[in-house]
Amino acid sequence: MEHYQQLKERLAEVADIEATAAVLVWDMRTYMPPGGAEGRAEQLATLEKIAHQKFTAPEIGELIEEAGLETASLPEEAEEAALVRMARREYDQQTKLPSDLVERLARTTSLANQTWVKAKTAADFSLFAPVLQEIVGLQIEKANALGHRGCPYDALLDLYEPEMETSQVRALFAQLREGLVPIVRAIADSGTRIETAFLEQEYEIAKQEAFTRELLQAIGYDFTRGRQDATAHPFTTSFSPSDVRVTNRFLPNRPTGAIFAALHEGGHGLYEQGLPERFQRTPLGHVPSLGLHESQSRLWENVVGRSRSFWEYWFPRLAEVFPEQLAGVDAELFYRAVNRVIPSPIRIQADEVTYNLHILLRFEIEVGLIDGALKVADLPEIWKARMEEFLGYTPRDHAEGVLQDIHWSEGYFGYFPTYTLGSLLAVQFYQQALQERPGLRGELEGGQTAGLLAWLRERIHAEGGKYLPVELVRRITGGELEAAPFLAYLKEKYSPIYGI
Amino acid sequence: MEHYQQLKERLAEVADIEATAAVLVWDMRTYMPPGGAEGRAEQLATLEKIAHQKFTAPEIGELIEEAGLETASLPEEAEEAALVRMARREYDQQTKLPSDLVERLARTTSLANQTWVKAKTAADFSLFAPVLQEIVGLQIEKANALGHRGCPYDALLDLYEPEMETSQVRALFAQLREGLVPIVRAIADSGTRIETAFLEQEYEIAKQEAFTRELLQAIGYDFTRGRQDATAHPFTTSFSPSDVRVTNRFLPNRPTGAIFAALHEGGHGLYEQGLPERFQRTPLGHVPSLGLHESQSRLWENVVGRSRSFWEYWFPRLAEVFPEQLAGVDAELFYRAVNRVIPSPIRIQADEVTYNLHILLRFEIEVGLIDGALKVADLPEIWKARMEEFLGYTPRDHAEGVLQDIHWSEGYFGYFPTYTLGSLLAVQFYQQALQERPGLRGELEGGQTAGLLAWLRERIHAEGGKYLPVELVRRITGGELEAAPFLAYLKEKYSPIYGI
Repeated sequence: MEHYQQLKERLAEVADIEATAAVLVWDMRTYMPPGGAEGRAEQLATLEKIAHQKFTAPEIGELIEEAGLETASLPEEAEEAALVRMARREYDQQTKLPSDLVERLARTTSLANQTWVKAKTAADFSLFAPVLQEIVGLQIEKANALGHRGCPYDALLDLYEPEMETSQVRALFAQLREGLVPIVRAIADSGTRIETAFLEQEYEIAKQEAFTRELLQAIGYDFTRGRQDATAHPFTTSFSPSDVRVTNRFLPNRPTGAIFAALHEGGHGLYEQGLPERFQRTPLGHVPSLGLHESQSRLWENVVGRSRSFWEYWFPRLAEVFPEQLAGVDAELFYRAVNRVIPSPIRIQADEVTYNLHILLRFEIEVGLIDGALKVADLPEIWKARMEEFLGYTPRDHAEGVLQDIHWSEGYFGYFPTYTLGSLLAVQFYQQALQERPGLRGELEGGQTAGLLAWLRERIHAEGGKYLPVELVRRITGGELEAAPFLAYLKEKYSPIYGI
Repeated sequence: MEHYQQLKERLAEVADIEATAAVLVWDMRTYMPPGGAEGRAEQLATLEKIAHQKFTAPEIGELIEEAGLETASLPEEAEEAALVRMARREYDQQTKLPSDLVERLARTTSLANQTWVKAKTAADFSLFAPVLQEIVGLQIEKANALGHRGCPYDALLDLYEPEMETSQVRALFAQLREGLVPIVRAIADSGTRIETAFLEQEYEIAKQEAFTRELLQAIGYDFTRGRQDATAHPFTTSFSPSDVRVTNRFLPNRPTGAIFAALHEGGHGLYEQGLPERFQRTPLGHVPSLGLHESQSRLWENVVGRSRSFWEYWFPRLAEVFPEQLAGVDAELFYRAVNRVIPSPIRIQADEVTYNLHILLRFEIEVGLIDGALKVADLPEIWKARMEEFLGYTPRDHAEGVLQDIHWSEGYFGYFPTYTLGSLLAVQFYQQALQERPGLRGELEGGQTAGLLAWLRERIHAEGGKYLPVELVRRITGGELEAAPFLAYLKEKYSPIYGI
C-alpha cells in the first residue's frame, strides 16, 4: 500500500488548498472590506491554478494506477478501494479540460459577473446577452472536452450530480410537472386566503440572530465546530468536519427569511459536520453530489421546518422572543403562514410547491441552450412564456425574469436541477427514517429531532463520499430517486391547509 | 527585462500564497471555532510548504541571476534593481531552510498555540514546557540552517531585523538599561501619586468599540480598506495595501487597553495602508523590518497618543461618550493617568518607561535559550528572578509570568527586541518630522495629525521595502538608530509629571 499512502498524501495537499480557497471565499462574503476585492481575486486565481496543477500532475495519474493495483483485491466497499475509485473519476474528469479552456472560462465568467450585475440593475437583458452567448459557447466546448454520448448537457450535469443523465432528469421532471400543475391550480382555485400580515412587521435583527442560533443548536448544529455569520446570500461552507460555517441574511421585515435560511443552511451544515473525520483531506471527504447535499437542507428547511409539529413546539418560544409582533397569533396560524403557496417571479422566495416549477423552467432552457435548440436572443420571450405556462405569472421586467439568478454569469450550467433532486430525496429519506425508527414519528410530534439526526448521521452522513449518488440512494432507500413520494407528501400536507 | 518580468510573475504567485496564509491566521485569531484548529494547522503547513517550495525552486535562483544582469546597469535606487536585490537576499536565506523543517515548524507552532492558551488559562507552565522545548529545538535547528558567525541568535534576529546583530542589540540595550533604571527609580522615589481609579470602572464595550473606531478614522486609518475585530491578543495583518486589518481587545474595566491598542495597531495599519500599490505582490511590498513597523505603532500609541495635546483635543469627546465614568476628570488628569509609570508584571500593559525593561528581560532569555545557556525547565525561576531584578516585581503565577506572551508559541524567536528598537526609532522619526515640517508642532498641539501622517507617508511608507532598515533609517534621519533621543524624550516628558 506504499503508492496508496503516497497518493493519499498528495491528495491531502490538494484538499488543504481547496479548504484554504473556501476560507478566502467565506471571508470575501462575510467580512472582507471593499478594498480587498482585487487582491482576493488574485489570491483565489493563484490557489485554483496551484490546486489544478497539483491534482492533474502526471505523477498523480501514475499513483492512481499503482494504488489501483494495490487495492484491487479489496472488496468494493473497502474505503481504500473507494478512495482510489473516486480519485480516478475526478482525475479523469479534470485532466480532460485543457488549461487554456479553464483559463478562458475563468476570465469570461469573472467579467460576465460584473456585466450581469449591471444588466440586472438596469433590467436590460441586451447588456448580458453577448457575454451569456460566449459563456454558452464555452460550456459547449467544456462539455465536448469532458466527453458524452450524444447529449452534451450530460457532461455538465455530471459535474454536480455524478452519473445522472439528462434523459433521467427529463423523465423525472415531466412526471413532477404533471403532478405539480394540478396541485398549484387546485390551491389557486381553493379561494383559501392565508394571513401573513403579522410577518411583515419589524422584527429586531439581534433577536432574529439569537433565535436562529437557538434553532441551529436545537437541531444539532455544533457551534464549537461552526459559526453563523451575516452575508448577502446565505451559504454553507466547510473547511473540515470540525469547521463548518453557515451564513444567514437578516432583514428587519422578513423574519421567516432568516428562520428558514438557518434551517436550510443548518441542514447543509449538519451533513458536513457529520462527515467522518477519517475521510478528511481525501476524495471521500465530500458529500457525493449537490442533490444529496440539498436533500439535507430541504429536509430540515421544509419537511421538518415547515411541519405543524415543529411549530407547535417552537412557536411558543418564538412568541416569547417577539411578543408584540406575534400577539394574537398561534402555532396553527403561523404554520399556515409559512406554508402559503403563491406563484411568484423569484425562485429563491418561492414556496415548497411552486419552487420546483422555477427549476423545471431553468432545466428546459439550459438543455436547449447547450444542445443548440434555443438561442440566447430568444431567452426573454421563452422565459416569459414558460413563467405564464408553468406558474401563471408574467414577470414585470427582465430583472425579475431571465436575469434574476447569478448562476449562469458564474458559469454554472447543470447545477439548477440538483435543487429539485434534493427536494425529492428529502421526502424519500424522511419516509425511510420513519419506517426504520418506529418511535420517530412520536419524537418529531413532540418537537424532538435528535432521533432523526441520529438516523441521518448513521445512514447518510457517515458514508461520506464513498458511493456515487445513485448507489448511496439505493443503499438508503433500497430503490431509486422518485417523484411520486414528493408529490404524495405535498398532497397530504396541502390538502388540509387549502381544503383541496 | 524578460527574465525580470518572469521573476516578478513567479514572485507574485508566492506573495498570493503568503497573503492567503495571513488570511488563515487572521481567521484563526478572530472567528475560527475551536474545532477548526487541527484542520487549520494542516492548511497552514501545506501553504507554507508550497510557498517555500515555489520560492526556493532552482528556476527562481536562475531568474534572479538573469534579472540581476538585466538590471545591473540601473542606478541602485531603481525599483527594478531593488526588487532583484531583495529577492536575492530572501532567496539566499530561504534556500538554506529545508522544506521539512519549514513544515515541522508550521505544524508545531500552529498546535502549540492552542496548548499555550490552555496552559495560560490554567497558569500551568508544565503544560506548555514540552511544546516550548520542541519549538526551541526547532529554532536552534533553523538558526544553524540559516547560518551565522558563532552566534545562532543573529540568524533569528536577522529574520525580523535584517542585518542587525545580537552584539549591537546587546550594546544598545545596555545603554538603555543604564538610562532607564535611574528614571524608574526617580519616579518611584518621587512620592507623586497619580490618580487612575476613574479608569477602573465599567466602560461599556460597544462604546469602547465605537470610540476606538472614531480614533482610528481620525488618525487616517481607512475602513474601506480595513476593519477592526476583537481578538485575544491584538495584532495587525495585511493581505494587500487595500485589505489591512487591525484587531483589538475590549475589556469592560480597561478602556485605555483598547484605546491604546487601537492607536498601536492603527500605527501598524497606517504603515501597511501607505505602502505603494505598485509594490504589491513583489518583495518590495513589505515593511523592511519589524523594528520599522514598530516605530509607527509606538509613534502613534505613545509619542502622539500619550501626549498632552492629543488628550487636550480628544478628552472632551471621550467624556461625551462616557459622561458618568469621567465626571470630574479633565484632560490633564486623564493625561497623567495614561502616563502613570508603575512596575507591573504584564508587558502589554506596561507604561512607556518600564516597557523596555520587559523586552530586555525577554532578549536575555531568548539569547540564553538559543545558545544553550538556559533550559526551558528553568524559565519560570529565571523569569521571576529577572522580574524582581529589573522591575522590582514578583509575578503571582505563571500566567502573569513566563506564560504571558503568545510569541514563543508561534515560533517567534528574535522578534521581541524589535519592540524596543521601534520605540527608539519612533522618537527619532518624530523629531525628524518636527524638524522638517515647521508647522507640525502647532498642528499637533491642536490635535491635528494629518500633517504628521503625510510626512510619514512621504518619507517612510512610500519607500515600501526598497531599502534595508539601516539604509532607510539613514535616509530618513541622516544617522543611525540610537538610544539617547528616546532617553531624552522620556526625561523631558516625565520630569514635569513626576516632578523629578
